[in-house]
Parts: sequence; C-alpha cells; structure tokens
Amino acid sequence: MHEVRWMNEAIQLAYRNVESGNGGPFGAIVVKDGKVIGTGVNEVTSHNDPTAHAEVQAIREACRLLGSFQLTDCDIYTSCEPCPMCLGAIYWARPRAVYFSFDRGEAASIGFDDAFIYDEIGAPLEQRRIPMHRLQGDTAEDPFVLWRTSHGRVEY
Amino acid sequence: MHEVRWMNEAIQLAYRNVESGNGGPFGAIVVKDGKVIGTGVNEVTSHNDPTAHAEVQAIREACRLLGSFQLTDCDIYTSCEPCPMCLGAIYWARPRAVYFSFDRGEAASIGFDDAFIYDEIGAPLEQRRIPMHRLQGDTAEDPFVLWRTSHGRVEY
Repeated sequence: MHEVRWMNEAIQLAYRNVESGNGGPFGAIVVKDGKVIGTGVNEVTSHNDPTAHAEVQAIREACRLLGSFQLTDCDIYTSCEPCPMCLGAIYWARPRAVYFSFDRGEAASIGFDDAFIYDEIGAPLEQRRIPMHRLQGDTAEDPFVLWRTSHGRVEY
Repeated sequence: MHEVRWMNEAIQLAYRNVESGNGGPFGAIVVKDGKVIGTGVNEVTSHNDPTAHAEVQAIREACRLLGSFQLTDCDIYTSCEPCPMCLGAIYWARPRAVYFSFDRGEAASIGFDDAFIYDEIGAPLEQRRIPMHRLQGDTAEDPFVLWRTSHGRVEY
C-alpha cells in the first residue's frame, strides 16, 4: 500500500538538495514495514561520482542497513522516474514496487539526459553515440567457465 | 587506439574475483593516456551492494582519482558487455569508448539477469515485472522549478 507522505518526503529531499547546493533536484527513499530504511539525494557533482544518483544512494544505504544485497518487500519512492542506470540498480535490488512523481520528459526539460539514455540503450551497438566494440582478450583464463564450475559461488 | 592487453587485464581481474570468492566473474578497468586510472570487480555479494558491479566500481575509482564526475578521453575495458545499470553509468560518465569481451547472452547463460533487464527497460511501465507507478506528492515544494531558477547550480 503506497502512501503519499513517503512521496512528499522524497520530493522534499530533492528540494533541499538544490537549496543546499549539494546536487541535482532528485531524492529517493526506501520504505520497509512502514519505516524509512534508506534515503538518497543526487550527489554527482559534490562527490565527483557520476553514479551517485538518489536511487542508487538510497538502495546502497538500505542494503547496508539490512546487511543484504536484496530489497525484498521494500518499496522505493523517488521524486523522479528512474534513469536507466537507476532502473538497472532497482532490478538488481529487486524491491516490491517503485513510485515516482516527475517523469523522464520533465527531467529532460530541465536539462537531464534520462530520455536520451533510454533511447541509446535500445539502440544497436554500432549506432550508439558512445562507441562500443566487442574485443576478445587473448588470455587463457576464462572467468565464466571458472564461475560455472565454482562450488563456493554466491548467486544473485 | 584499443589494446588487447587492457582487455586481458579486465578478464584477469574477473577471473581472480571468482577464485578469491569475492563476487561474480566480472572485471573492468578505466584507461587514460596509456595508464590504468581505475579498476573494479563485482562485489555485490561480499559488500551487500547490488550496485557494486565492476564497471560502476571502476568508474567511481577513476572519477575519485581525477577529481571529476566525467571520464573525458578515457576508455573503459570490461570483461563483459555492460548491464543496463552499468551502461547508464557509462553514459553519465561520458568516456571516449567502451570495449567488452563476453556479451549479455553469455552472461545470461551462466545465470545473470542482464538480458532480462534489457528487455524490461524497453517495456512499457505497466508491463514491467517490478510494478512502477506514477504517484504525485501533495507538497508545495517543486524541486524542478527551484533547479531551473537556481543560479548556483552545477549542471552535468
């Protein structure tokens, strides 16, 4: 069951993040059993970390608190529709549901690349704006074969 | 100009990461002006961090070293085609080029969700396996308006 108060909290985090000059206008929280277990704001420019988006920061904090790499039975409230990086992070974290307020078009209208990156991800490799090439190594070590035959591996 | 030795280094990082039981069979390096300025391996399970993929870790390390949130004129060598999260991180970091060895199909064949997440990202919201809903807040604060009118903002 979603609650508007959690969305308000995510939006207020975003607002205060701009006010303080810490980063972009984005905030996110992770809620489990009616409690906030992680919060995040956009800290890309203040931390020199292009991956420090609100959702990524909130997921990392909640996972640290839970001592788990999965957000089972958690809900994510984010002030803006997740960009592809954050959406990928969400799929790896596997929460129960995601709620967002602003959308990718609105993010684009204030100068963020979210919509552009969504387009690029669907494009064939050879048409992408950042060149991506397949390149085989010539080392004998094969990490995938080792993984398949490794008894101690922790799958996820 | 790409070099196979850098790919070998990324693959060997991946191999040693499985050998040591630290995480999944993935490694990545960031190269600038003929020097490695960041390395990363998959540390999802050992760090309880679903975002700790090889490319994300390497990008974060290289950005810390450069004191920048952009990887201008850098190349990323990764043992496996980036998942959508890592591809998003790459677009935000804006390197010059990306080289990969194994592909998303091979990752799927050893049990990783990369191909599944690529499909989900292209799917309409209402068809996604993790439910995603638009939910408006009812707070008066509007972070996007504040951002547009903020003189001190650092764009990226």
